[in-house]
Amino acid sequence: MARTEETVLTAQREFRDQLLRHGLLISTGVPGLYGRSGEFEDTVQRIDGFVAAHGAGDHPEVMRFPPIIDRSLFERSGYLKSFPQLAGSVHSFEGDERKHRELLQAVEQGRDWSTELPHAGVVLTPAACYPVYPLFAGALPAGGRLVDVMSYCFRHEPSDDSGRMQMFRMHEHVRAADPESTVSWREAWIGRSERLTIALGLDARSEVASDPFFGRGGKLLAVNQREERLKLEIVTPIGSDEQPTAIISLNYHRDHFAHIFGIRTADGEVAHTACVGFGLERMALALYRQHGFDRTTWPPSVREMLGL
Amino acid sequence: MARTEETVLTAQREFRDQLLRHGLLISTGVPGLYGRSGEFEDTVQRIDGFVAAHGAGDHPEVMRFPPIIDRSLFERSGYLKSFPQLAGSVHSFEGDERKHRELLQAVEQGRDWSTELPHAGVVLTPAACYPVYPLFAGALPAGGRLVDVMSYCFRHEPSDDSGRMQMFRMHEHVRAADPESTVSWREAWIGRSERLTIALGLDARSEVASDPFFGRGGKLLAVNQREERLKLEIVTPIGSDEQPTAIISLNYHRDHFAHIFGIRTADGEVAHTACVGFGLERMALALYRQHGFDRTTWPPSVREMLGL
Repeated sequence: MARTEETVLTAQREFRDQLLRHGLLISTGVPGLYGRSGEFEDTVQRIDGFVAAHGAGDHPEVMRFPPIIDRSLFERSGYLKSFPQLAGSVHSFEGDERKHRELLQAVEQGRDWSTELPHAGVVLTPAACYPVYPLFAGALPAGGRLVDVMSYCFRHEPSDDSGRMQMFRMHEHVRAADPESTVSWREAWIGRSERLTIALGLDARSEVASDPFFGRGGKLLAVNQREERLKLEIVTPIGSDEQPTAIISLNYHRDHFAHIFGIRTADGEVAHTACVGFGLERMALALYRQHGFDRTTWPPSVREMLGL
Repeated sequence: MARTEETVLTAQREFRDQLLRHGLLISTGVPGLYGRSGEFEDTVQRIDGFVAAHGAGDHPEVMRFPPIIDRSLFERSGYLKSFPQLAGSVHSFEGDERKHRELLQAVEQGRDWSTELPHAGVVLTPAACYPVYPLFAGALPAGGRLVDVMSYCFRHEPSDDSGRMQMFRMHEHVRAADPESTVSWREAWIGRSERLTIALGLDARSEVASDPFFGRGGKLLAVNQREERLKLEIVTPIGSDEQPTAIISLNYHRDHFAHIFGIRTADGEVAHTACVGFGLERMALALYRQHGFDRTTWPPSVREMLGL
């Protein structure tokens, strides 16, 4: 392991331990799965409201979804091509009393009781915007559509970095329109996002980024994504100063979802889509990291922004 | 199918269709899995605050957990003995590029791509209180402990009844103490729950209830649970008038969780536990059912209670 990587891991573990000691996060025994204290949750809720308010002037349609989605929609989305390692498939017991006795025997003997469970027709939501694209199917109204969503999301990546949780909340604004409107909408959010992080007193910068695509083929996809600036991120220190973490992600999908779900503009052209996602726990963690564990001592301007 | 059962199913489907037509719920194609409109979500949030306020005078510790829990804790809880059919086990892909190609081939050919996925060490949360009991392990402080939790919960029971969702939110107050204090705490919540439903103008009544235990052995457990009045419910019409639905559940576990997780009173005795759970979506649905789909026409006293 390289020296820098070691330093980063040590810093991340130290910060996580501090969060646990201050009672802001609660250990569950599973890496990347934490309970939240009342105060931490309150901070997340305030950030959620702050983020929603920044997009409210655009009058988005507000929707909320539980953190599971239709399995067939998930298959169509292409997620399994790019990020199979992060997905969470849900499985349930179906069977009679004999099967049930076998299940309980497996539990008792410490064997895996879940190997034969059939899938339950749903998977955990990988990003808050996934339930939205199928709803755009068909011809969009003139001017396109804009949706505000927020939900818990799942990513199977157990980690000691508090900034990399297995379940976390993402607030997103999702746009579907003609290519030009979609691009300029994302451009507007770059400026907004920078102002938003400045208002929160965070030491942040924007950069061109790529997704953690699976495998060797994934490396090419990542290079292409960077070259075409399809993914931009606002990053800020959370677990370590050396390796800042994305708190806002601005993604331009071109016609990827429009092709899959049959989304057309009012003129009948293939639509384009884009989304801006805010990592709510990450933003809260960045505030504790950079302004201290005692919320009453945060800069007055930041406290005012969050209504504290 | 008996005549009454048919009438109930027809009424439930009719009410669900009305909710979809009014745009309060959004279809996802999966039975029992819905998006929520901005207004419906707002109603749920107001009920959540209303429920929390009713218990705030007891100064509970506030905790919030994501909707997955540690698989080993889930095994120990005994849930698989009683309700295997409702559980949701989470599975993730692990493998190399060859395995990934096989996975994608299965998707392409419409075969099940998830049969060989290993479990991910977590399961979906079956009730909001499950992450709390292990935290009580050891000796309780004098007077015991009281926790306020709220989370999305999963139950694998696809249904056309909007009052029976696969994912829904439950707000709970969880008590661990000596047997006498635990029993009297639950007693106090029976009165509170009745006052709370009256304040919301709901046509509700309390009754002795039982859980949907699995199999023939489960029938005996249910009889025992009723005889000992371990589960009380406040029920009110949601999908049909003939068959009211539980919106509040008051459960006394005796020493079940205390034995499993080693919870003792300050005096070293085995503790008892109890919980009171509020079904937030169900309460919202009951309000729309009984006061109408237009929230502005709800009774003034109800609107005032919810800050509308």
